[in-house]
Amino acid sequence: MLKPVLIAGQWRAAHADGGFHADDPTTGQPLPDEYPISRWDDCDAALSAAAAIRDLPTDRIARFLNTYAARIEARQTEIVDIAHQETALPKTPRLATIEMGRTTNQLRLAAVAALDGSWSLPTIDAKLNIRSRHAAIGPVVIFGPNNFPLAFNAISGGDFAAAIAAGNPVIAKAHPSHPGTTRLLAEEAVGALAEAQLPPATVQLIYHMSRQDGLRLVSDPRVGASAFTGSRGAGLALKAAADAAGKPIYLEMSSLNPVVVLPGALRERAEKIADEFADSCLAASGQFCTKPGLLVLIAGDESEKFVAAIQQRFASRPSGPLLSSAVSQSFASSLKKLQSAGAKTLAGGEEIPGPSWRYANTLLRVDGEHFLSQPEALQTEAFGNATLAVVARDANQASEILAKLDGQLTGCIYSDTQAADDQLYVLLSPILRQRVGRLLNDKMPTGVAVTPAMNHGGPYPATGHPGFTAVGIPASMRRFSKLECFDNVRPHRLPPSLRDRQEK
Amino acid sequence: MLKPVLIAGQWRAAHADGGFHADDPTTGQPLPDEYPISRWDDCDAALSAAAAIRDLPTDRIARFLNTYAARIEARQTEIVDIAHQETALPKTPRLATIEMGRTTNQLRLAAVAALDGSWSLPTIDAKLNIRSRHAAIGPVVIFGPNNFPLAFNAISGGDFAAAIAAGNPVIAKAHPSHPGTTRLLAEEAVGALAEAQLPPATVQLIYHMSRQDGLRLVSDPRVGASAFTGSRGAGLALKAAADAAGKPIYLEMSSLNPVVVLPGALRERAEKIADEFADSCLAASGQFCTKPGLLVLIAGDESEKFVAAIQQRFASRPSGPLLSSAVSQSFASSLKKLQSAGAKTLAGGEEIPGPSWRYANTLLRVDGEHFLSQPEALQTEAFGNATLAVVARDANQASEILAKLDGQLTGCIYSDTQAADDQLYVLLSPILRQRVGRLLNDKMPTGVAVTPAMNHGGPYPATGHPGFTAVGIPASMRRFSKLECFDNVRPHRLPPSLRDRQEK
Repeated sequence: MLKPVLIAGQWRAAHADGGFHADDPTTGQPLPDEYPISRWDDCDAALSAAAAIRDLPTDRIARFLNTYAARIEARQTEIVDIAHQETALPKTPRLATIEMGRTTNQLRLAAVAALDGSWSLPTIDAKLNIRSRHAAIGPVVIFGPNNFPLAFNAISGGDFAAAIAAGNPVIAKAHPSHPGTTRLLAEEAVGALAEAQLPPATVQLIYHMSRQDGLRLVSDPRVGASAFTGSRGAGLALKAAADAAGKPIYLEMSSLNPVVVLPGALRERAEKIADEFADSCLAASGQFCTKPGLLVLIAGDESEKFVAAIQQRFASRPSGPLLSSAVSQSFASSLKKLQSAGAKTLAGGEEIPGPSWRYANTLLRVDGEHFLSQPEALQTEAFGNATLAVVARDANQASEILAKLDGQLTGCIYSDTQAADDQLYVLLSPILRQRVGRLLNDKMPTGVAVTPAMNHGGPYPATGHPGFTAVGIPASMRRFSKLECFDNVRPHRLPPSLRDRQEK
Repeated sequence: MLKPVLIAGQWRAAHADGGFHADDPTTGQPLPDEYPISRWDDCDAALSAAAAIRDLPTDRIARFLNTYAARIEARQTEIVDIAHQETALPKTPRLATIEMGRTTNQLRLAAVAALDGSWSLPTIDAKLNIRSRHAAIGPVVIFGPNNFPLAFNAISGGDFAAAIAAGNPVIAKAHPSHPGTTRLLAEEAVGALAEAQLPPATVQLIYHMSRQDGLRLVSDPRVGASAFTGSRGAGLALKAAADAAGKPIYLEMSSLNPVVVLPGALRERAEKIADEFADSCLAASGQFCTKPGLLVLIAGDESEKFVAAIQQRFASRPSGPLLSSAVSQSFASSLKKLQSAGAKTLAGGEEIPGPSWRYANTLLRVDGEHFLSQPEALQTEAFGNATLAVVARDANQASEILAKLDGQLTGCIYSDTQAADDQLYVLLSPILRQRVGRLLNDKMPTGVAVTPAMNHGGPYPATGHPGFTAVGIPASMRRFSKLECFDNVRPHRLPPSLRDRQEK
């Protein structure tokens, strides 16, 4: 019996082309519930229901977001249980504390931003009587990723909170690796919509669809915009379809998140940095968008010792299961690509026998000259517990390596505190800064703080456009807006936020 | 002898595949100067020179913009003369007063915005030490349109001012219908760059290139972003190329700018509205992006009288020359398409014999039912002195017509002042508002005021993205920016605008 989809406020049987099960990553076995792979009919119905929605009142939006956050908290145990079952991510602190807190915090921050309204940059020229603001763009389709079942879930995560807070109905496409988690969240969304008296079709849920229907969905005339977090391959296919139809799509795709550790920093605090690096790389089995997948060092004794220190940590730490069979296959294939391109395996590299999808923590190494000879293959992202150390001959080669990097979400430089590395910093940081959305000093990139100052974005192909962030309200909301202008429009016909003060 | 191109600060011979002449629109004859069609070599050299530029200081940018404005004014007579020769647009008030004033005003507003810096939305989380702002995206390629030789010129117009003020070098691609105007402007830009001590390659100029090289240019890895104002065909080809390379491109393409005149407004002030409509349609021979190309009326005596009033004005007013042979051919072909789709010709429709490219002012008409039977063909843009009146059977049919419209830059509703039209307004305006970037009341859309509240943008295919405007500083500047974030970066390494107050 296939689970129902949520369309136009009803949990109803999907028009399905078969079904699928999520797997238990600890056993590799399918979980009992079966979810539908929707046919286009379901997408079409969701689009029509969403397109009929206009002008959601901000007070109700805020009430929805707050109520939804409270309802998720009230059902926290059940939600964390199923998220753990579907992802094998630890319940505490990861799911119950960190990710749950992040999720409800984001929803509440979005409520505040919706009420406040300054996200929309209202601009009034009273003399010419021309007024503009950012306003809802229309139905937003969100494709959630596999690696954050709550905080980036298509029905509860950052994209969701931003799209709703900007006044848009959302069609959530669940990630097939945690449909049960998504279903429980959707149940609470339905309850919160009713409490907030928002139209039932404000939030809809489809679990899965064919690739072709996904492409059709993001390019449908009824769509306002789409958001996608996931692999580069899937993201670029959606981008091509949306672009051809002139529909905005915001993508968060692959990133190596290079970490450069300069010699002075190593002389000063190599062990501490090695701990930080291993922690950042191996947390959640390396399944973070911002996992450092590339370590850039400059040849020398301290760098050799540092590589050895990382190697030792990778070898001695346990490794957790990967999220799914698909992640495992992709990880294996990426490792193979990197190895074929000449990366040497210093630690790990092999699958760990047993029922779950597990790999030994993997440290690869290549020298700078070799990296420069195959910069594309050696930038293959291995989504999982692996990283590639590149040891540059000297500072100039390090700068050439950074200049060859694709667009990244983050880039980091560790330098010493006594200015010994300053010349290197001045050489390397401008090159790195051009290639990343977030430049860090002396801090690992994982842990994307929810703050208005965050940029979880970056140059292509890390994302589809370097001007937008997926995390950080209110900036993330403006992705899901159009600019609307009122020229000589009579005062009572203006949206309240654009009226002269005395008329508001 | 081909005129030289401006690359890396030098006026030097182009690597050319032949040359071209601009035509004198009043005679249809080529003007004497010959300009080069650059080969890829020139584009490549310009890209390399531009890509080497980093971190233009805002005080010098502002000085450049102000100096440039003053230098353009000092050479105003010569510039207006050649612009008039190349476009046949009237010297006064159009070129010398309106367009010249708009151009230098824009440059000066951009200077103020560059210095002020608030366009970059600096956002500081001092507690977490995370900071972000919008910053220069990198070399911007600008393709200027044919219809505003000064105010939208690739080397002096709104896109140029916005891109430079945001800190980017610009590669200007002149419009081939006014290369001489563009050359004089470029000469003043060179002088102003030297006065402001900016790198010479901050502003470069190429006159023409093959279509293929244009596509290559917007998708080159060294480009930050591109901007294009012109026809839908050329714009969509550039968009496809830029999209495939993950490069932002901002397009301002076709728009019909529908004007809805409700029955009460006609009963109240039909003659006045007819004057406004004819003025707006026929100014500059209808060659404005915001020319009202579609008039929507509801059947009735007052609408019949209004159509007759427009017809009378169109027939009695002189018509000026179109900008070029290409515009003339495209206009003729659009009229033919509209007529083939069933539009009846109430005035004009034919070319006026003589040396210049001139057409009689053309008023076409179709009833609502017929429009709905061929909504695509009947939305063909005729760039020139023509408009299509659509007479809907009733209010519901008018709403169906509006619902079929493509994305537009503007849309306007005229209603009476005694609330007789209010019910119709409430029915029609939400539909129109969804389809336009700027909604007007009781005012024609031509005359795009330079104000921060302006939106010269709109839903696809009027532009490529509904969230951006081409006119209106500072919003127009953010198109040419990336979001950059500094996480835990040491205070002295931060850009000044992101430092804590006491450290600035």
